Amino acid sequence: MSEFLVTIRPRYGEVDRMGVVYHAHYLSYFEIGRTEFMRSLGTPYAELETRGFRLAVVEAAVRYRRPALYDQELEVAVTLAQVGRATVTFRYELWDAEGAVLSSGHTRLGCMDEDNRPCALPRDVYSRLKAGMKPGTSSSETS
Amino acid sequence: MSEFLVTIRPRYGEVDRMGVVYHAHYLSYFEIGRTEFMRSLGTPYAELETRGFRLAVVEAAVRYRRPALYDQELEVAVTLAQVGRATVTFRYELWDAEGAVLSSGHTRLGCMDEDNRPCALPRDVYSRLKAGMKPGTSSSETS
Amino acid sequence: MSEFLVTIRPRYGEVDRMGVVYHAHYLSYFEIGRTEFMRSLGTPYAELETRGFRLAVVEAAVRYRRPALYDQELEVAVTLAQVGRATVTFRYELWDAEGAVLSSGHTRLGCMDEDNRPCALPRDVYSRLKAGMKPGTSSSETS
Amino acid sequence: MSEFLVTIRPRYGEVDRMGVVYHAHYLSYFEIGRTEFMRSLGTPYAELETRGFRLAVVEAAVRYRRPALYDQELEVAVTLAQVGRATVTFRYELWDAEGAVLSSGHTRLGCMDEDNRPCALPRDVYSRLKAGMKPGTSSSETS
Repeated sequence: MSEFLVTIRPRYGEVDRMGVVYHAHYLSYFEIGRTEFMRSLGTPYAELETRGFRLAVVEAAVRYRRPALYDQELEVAVTLAQVGRATVTFRYELWDAEGAVLSSGHTRLGCMDEDNRPCALPRDVYSRLKAGMKPGTSSSETS
Repeated sequence: MSEFLVTIRPRYGEVDRMGVVYHAHYLSYFEIGRTEFMRSLGTPYAELETRGFRLAVVEAAVRYRRPALYDQELEVAVTLAQVGRATVTFRYELWDAEGAVLSSGHTRLGCMDEDNRPCALPRDVYSRLKAGMKPGTSSSETS
Repeated sequence: MSEFLVTIRPRYGEVDRMGVVYHAHYLSYFEIGRTEFMRSLGTPYAELETRGFRLAVVEAAVRYRRPALYDQELEVAVTLAQVGRATVTFRYELWDAEGAVLSSGHTRLGCMDEDNRPCALPRDVYSRLKAGMKPGTSSSETS
Repeated sequence: MSEFLVTIRPRYGEVDRMGVVYHAHYLSYFEIGRTEFMRSLGTPYAELETRGFRLAVVEAAVRYRRPALYDQELEVAVTLAQVGRATVTFRYELWDAEGAVLSSGHTRLGCMDEDNRPCALPRDVYSRLKAGMKPGTSSSETS
């Protein structure tokens, strides 16, 4: 399986007075990509929470290359970089209509139970995320 | 008792590409004013939630007169316009350093229990909010 | 012409610790509705700004009836309530999948030139917005 | 010179339904720290923009250790990690009242002119930022 794509358009309030998307909002765009990717794999994130699990962001990084603009049609490209028993790493790129990479980044998420204690991913979720990894991407069973 | 004042400075990400604060953020500024006002009355909002009560916004209105700018030192002026058994109305003005009114508005909040059902305000909170009303402001016992 | 509909899903970061959408974000949802409505009428808002005009929010009001939830599929229903020479009023309702109204509100916007001075809407924009009004809705030529 | 500290309190709308601050908002908290630090060094960021310069975030990273909570009194601790001719790197830690580190991170910013082209920092700003570095921190003249 390969890159998952979601189309977004920056909102007016997300653009700062430089006329470009404010840097913190890229993390929200990445999350939209991750959320739709998980839905497409048959494991909607909201359902995971209903079952008593949470994926908390433990690490995030963004590299800003070119500015994203108001109302521009963009693609969030998401891949699963690592799926472990208790953590998952997603990689993201934000593309403009010509396919130029505006920004890239990753987030590492840790599975938590309802008391916010680290725990293993539910078996079925683990399997589906594994299946959603890019062919050739190495995976860690023991992160 | 009279107007309660809180100083704020618009953040970079709150200013849109017109160079002025994006209209939705005024509701956050109003909330900062309300939160600090409640704290000053001896009823911190966070404590209210710990006790199993919530104040949900049921109505909000804002009138935008002049733009608020990035990093400008502003005052949120808050008054309690109405305190009922189950609802509370706050009024707000946003002032610049010269005292010019940049915007004004109000929010009406309804008390809810942990199951999100309307309920009466706890007695002590009701009394303290009542005491926080401007002299001369009429209050509704039966909203 | 009648109601214009746009589908949205509340994002994770838009939901507060009551588990419901934070009240300020409804104004962003309304704006998404307004933006897509304007695009559908042949007057994309971004284009208006490129031509040197801005629509600044001068008044906003929201009535919160039932909470909107994380990841819920919702519709923003937008209508043009008033189109004047220099101001425009949009009305909004937020519906859940069963058509229940979660919230409603309006925003009044004033046309401004590049120096943030009130001015008349460009003729063609005025005509298209007029055409986008609901049949039977009265319009004001002189607001 | 050493760590610069700014007190903040997470706002209601910044806390998600896990009851903790949403991960994207830490970048705003870091920015508040950076903004006040720059003001204290005699180079308010707003003034820099007035003079025709911008500091655009080119890289950001956050490590989330423990959750920040609603209304908690926190400190943003900021240090200047690198000051080059055209780029600046700030490091941040978010502390709770007991001094526990809730999160840490950095942002690298690039100086841009009004046409969004990379350029050197104004001489006086460069000197003041240099002076604001921690003793013993190595600096790069040629980043």
